[in-house]
Amino acid sequence: MKIGKHTYLVDKDVYIASAYSLAGPYESKGAFREYFDTVMEDDEWKCKSHELTEIEMQRFTIGECLDRAKVNPMDCDLILGGDLLNQIVPTSFSARDFNTPFMGLYNACATFGEALSIGSYFVSGDFERVICCTSSHYATAERQYRYPLELGTQPTPESQWTVTGCGAVMLTKSKCDAPKIKGFTIGEVIDFGLCDANNMGGAMAPAAAKTIVNHFKDTGRCPEYYDLIITGDLGRFGRDTLHYLCKKEGYSLDNLNDCGSMIYSTAQKAGQGGSGAGCCSLVFASYLYKQMLADNLKKVLFVPTGAMLSRDSALQGESIPGIAHAVVIEKE
Amino acid sequence: MKIGKHTYLVDKDVYIASAYSLAGPYESKGAFREYFDTVMEDDEWKCKSHELTEIEMQRFTIGECLDRAKVNPMDCDLILGGDLLNQIVPTSFSARDFNTPFMGLYNACATFGEALSIGSYFVSGDFERVICCTSSHYATAERQYRYPLELGTQPTPESQWTVTGCGAVMLTKSKCDAPKIKGFTIGEVIDFGLCDANNMGGAMAPAAAKTIVNHFKDTGRCPEYYDLIITGDLGRFGRDTLHYLCKKEGYSLDNLNDCGSMIYSTAQKAGQGGSGAGCCSLVFASYLYKQMLADNLKKVLFVPTGAMLSRDSALQGESIPGIAHAVVIEKE
Repeated sequence: MKIGKHTYLVDKDVYIASAYSLAGPYESKGAFREYFDTVMEDDEWKCKSHELTEIEMQRFTIGECLDRAKVNPMDCDLILGGDLLNQIVPTSFSARDFNTPFMGLYNACATFGEALSIGSYFVSGDFERVICCTSSHYATAERQYRYPLELGTQPTPESQWTVTGCGAVMLTKSKCDAPKIKGFTIGEVIDFGLCDANNMGGAMAPAAAKTIVNHFKDTGRCPEYYDLIITGDLGRFGRDTLHYLCKKEGYSLDNLNDCGSMIYSTAQKAGQGGSGAGCCSLVFASYLYKQMLADNLKKVLFVPTGAMLSRDSALQGESIPGIAHAVVIEKE
Repeated sequence: MKIGKHTYLVDKDVYIASAYSLAGPYESKGAFREYFDTVMEDDEWKCKSHELTEIEMQRFTIGECLDRAKVNPMDCDLILGGDLLNQIVPTSFSARDFNTPFMGLYNACATFGEALSIGSYFVSGDFERVICCTSSHYATAERQYRYPLELGTQPTPESQWTVTGCGAVMLTKSKCDAPKIKGFTIGEVIDFGLCDANNMGGAMAPAAAKTIVNHFKDTGRCPEYYDLIITGDLGRFGRDTLHYLCKKEGYSLDNLNDCGSMIYSTAQKAGQGGSGAGCCSLVFASYLYKQMLADNLKKVLFVPTGAMLSRDSALQGESIPGIAHAVVIEKE
């Protein structure tokens, strides 16, 4: 049922029947190390380039997620996914191995929220099983958006660390004791005119604020309805900016946190925190999903956030538009 | 109603209420010149870079498509779209101007088929109005995928000419005398191992064949059910390859044509024909839509096709996976 302009409440049962998380070696030293299903022993994972590694990461994670749900790829209706690389090569190339209908998505680091929204809409209709998967890799993202790692460039204080990781979930209508997707609020593209490609949190926070405020207006809920409101990869600076922006609109988000702010330990020198399309999918498929399975979290507003720049748009002096999609996930 | 593994038949009415086409100057000399709504007088369109031109093309086309349907952007539920540039910058950046929920898609030149599929599914449910839009630009695509135009590189005989153009449609459930989307068949990623980035038609034809054969198997229809089966941008060589591959599977596509093969006149030196994410959306929003409005075409199987390579994947020696989504469009 659509309510308001931006929000859809899923009126059929859509279960997140299985989840699988694959983390890089640096991420395995962070706060969620005990929650990851598989940890890569190094950044290459026996591949000749980091781009090939990221293809293999997606292939492996989707395969394990299907295995865990005891579903043959042939019985899966659709794979929805994306990543940060040009032409979403990791996602498209990994889909070669599954003989499954495929749709590629791109909303930068908000892609996982887009996938969960479209996926839950399909499963609330006639589709039985849909996989949602996103990934990122520190080395491929640095090379593409900034500089090759070999240059040893110094990060700025506002910068974030792209997560090497991949998270996949399988949505299904078959009843099981798992969290359900109960709705989503689709984001608008918001541009506050920031041009600093090292300050993604600042560029994305206004989009996250807009989506979260739209969600409360559309649903009539207040922030306290949720046990946790968790954004994708704003980082600490961006999370605090979001808190400030929502407060100005009359919503005090005392239960707010951010996957990027949480994923690394404070001892790790990861700037403002993690980022990347794999940041929120990795945290969701590990920590958040397992906390919900254990009933430690019942109602979560999960808000992946994305900054829509490309290297060319940044070099041409364009500002950085942001987007965020909010997904309501509840365990009964 | 989902039938078979790949196909969904839309059981509610989903009308293509309006369409708008914007063509580049070279395209305006081709076969469909009288069908285009607006023709750009030059490739820059008063913008400082061709990338900025492509942003402006999307913004203009979506705006005109909404105007034509007499819909305020505020009353539009969703914009779905994509393009070929890294991080789909033209689509994302144009969406800044509309205050409308936005989801970015990427399936290379098959993105318009993906948008029509997801869009019709949303409108067959609770969404009222969804815009689908894709674009491409010859200069931005050449610079990104091959060489800057200033180098004057010689094209190979198998190569195609990226269309400068943009096409947008608005899907709605409000009854009107317009073509309807009656179903879609979602494609799989198919890789026959071709590595020649100049022979896109050859790389995409196997994916198109797979989707079309799946469509006939799922629906039980034969090719003659349709007045026209039209692929996105296979070019002449790719179209002939598709014809051969389907014949081997027992389907003789005597009513087959291809937007890329048709868009330029034979006098224009455009290799095997047009290509690009804007090729099929431009041809659809101009020639095909107007032919259907005039009842000259009643039943069309529209099959946008995409080649999923990036410059990096090509330089790293990877083969080129293809994908194609088939959309059933009928006028009653």
